[in-house]
Amino acid sequence: MQNGHPQPIVTVDVVLLTLKDGALQVALSQREHPPHPGEWTLPGGWVHVDEDEDALAAAVRILKSKTGLQSPYLEQLQTFANRHRDSRGWSVSIAYYALVPYEQVHERLSVPTRSKPGKNDATHPRIQWRGVDSIRSLPFDHQKILETAVSRVRSKTLYSSLPIHLMPKIFTLSQLQNVYEQVLGSSLDKRTFRRRIEELDLVEPIPGALEQGGAHRPAQCYRVKRRHGRELALAEKNLR
Amino acid sequence: MQNGHPQPIVTVDVVLLTLKDGALQVALSQREHPPHPGEWTLPGGWVHVDEDEDALAAAVRILKSKTGLQSPYLEQLQTFANRHRDSRGWSVSIAYYALVPYEQVHERLSVPTRSKPGKNDATHPRIQWRGVDSIRSLPFDHQKILETAVSRVRSKTLYSSLPIHLMPKIFTLSQLQNVYEQVLGSSLDKRTFRRRIEELDLVEPIPGALEQGGAHRPAQCYRVKRRHGRELALAEKNLR
Repeated sequence: MQNGHPQPIVTVDVVLLTLKDGALQVALSQREHPPHPGEWTLPGGWVHVDEDEDALAAAVRILKSKTGLQSPYLEQLQTFANRHRDSRGWSVSIAYYALVPYEQVHERLSVPTRSKPGKNDATHPRIQWRGVDSIRSLPFDHQKILETAVSRVRSKTLYSSLPIHLMPKIFTLSQLQNVYEQVLGSSLDKRTFRRRIEELDLVEPIPGALEQGGAHRPAQCYRVKRRHGRELALAEKNLR
Repeated sequence: MQNGHPQPIVTVDVVLLTLKDGALQVALSQREHPPHPGEWTLPGGWVHVDEDEDALAAAVRILKSKTGLQSPYLEQLQTFANRHRDSRGWSVSIAYYALVPYEQVHERLSVPTRSKPGKNDATHPRIQWRGVDSIRSLPFDHQKILETAVSRVRSKTLYSSLPIHLMPKIFTLSQLQNVYEQVLGSSLDKRTFRRRIEELDLVEPIPGALEQGGAHRPAQCYRVKRRHGRELALAEKNLR
């Protein structure tokens, strides 16, 4: 109660996305406590008013405790707030999403696809990766939160530098296009793609770095320009 | 307290925008109670868990009680949630924004620009309209919420049908372009604008309706296509 008003429950949920096996996949965390004990959901938890500076700090803390992953680039997605989404009462979920390169997480996160509820701790978080298009239902309103995140990521991908958060440190332009295509789930015209990437002023060639590509002639290697570390570059036209 | 966790305060704030005197203006509401009694802020209030179905319903209720305005098209903007924004404690503001034609509101909302704190009720809400670019500071973090809303509206305007919510029922293409330009605060190329509006498939000519424009030859009158009532159409390219 605050000021005579009963207050809603306030939680944070995180849609953590990566590219794995050529498709967009999401990290699911196994719940220990009711409601839905033992089920797989988006990593989430309560805001701790004595501990969290703001909602983003809560997201970072929760992601670390549920997945072992340290602060990737997190962006606020949307807030889901109503009387029905949680059986414990009127509740608010401030949802975030993040994109991470799979190389950065796959060693840390062991993936027991079928396992019983167990202890979540920072060293052995219980996580599995699932293809976003193969998931049909999740507890609470997490299916809706997931779909909102995937739709946001795909629509931003058409206009922006968002997928660079999925890239390794060094890559060729073909690999970059491949990542954009895997996120979108559809192919892009090579010439249009390269023109848009140039307009975004996103990447730079690494002097002298060539990838020995087997049958093909060596391809120039690129890296993300430093100023794009955490900022989103926006294109004037879409990539198609 | 819920489940042993002290919970944040949960509020909703609304950035209500219109075009007036050729510029984007925002509705400010006069606070009655501390903190900041008598000051002008975005219309806002607590979520009432016993009364509001969801956050959007709270926004509609609060907007009606603070401005007398019945449910325009409201879109969620962003959630502002941290320890510092409200002196009463860790607080969450789920912020919404709305665009409304000024004709729809100016009669209802009397505008005492300088007045002392008084009773806000549905028949005599205390409201003033201020040009968004002339506001330098607002109580709480409302300046930041306002700037986030204006920036969102301008960036959406470049790509979408968003400004149709500002239009009267009947208008010419010149008037439509004028509204886009007033929202953006900059001029647009007429040919590019008309091509994009056509691609958006947004408006249709009203058979036989011509505006007698004084010195100019009569201009065709248009209306928004019905299916665009509440949905946002998105352009592939921006309007510039």
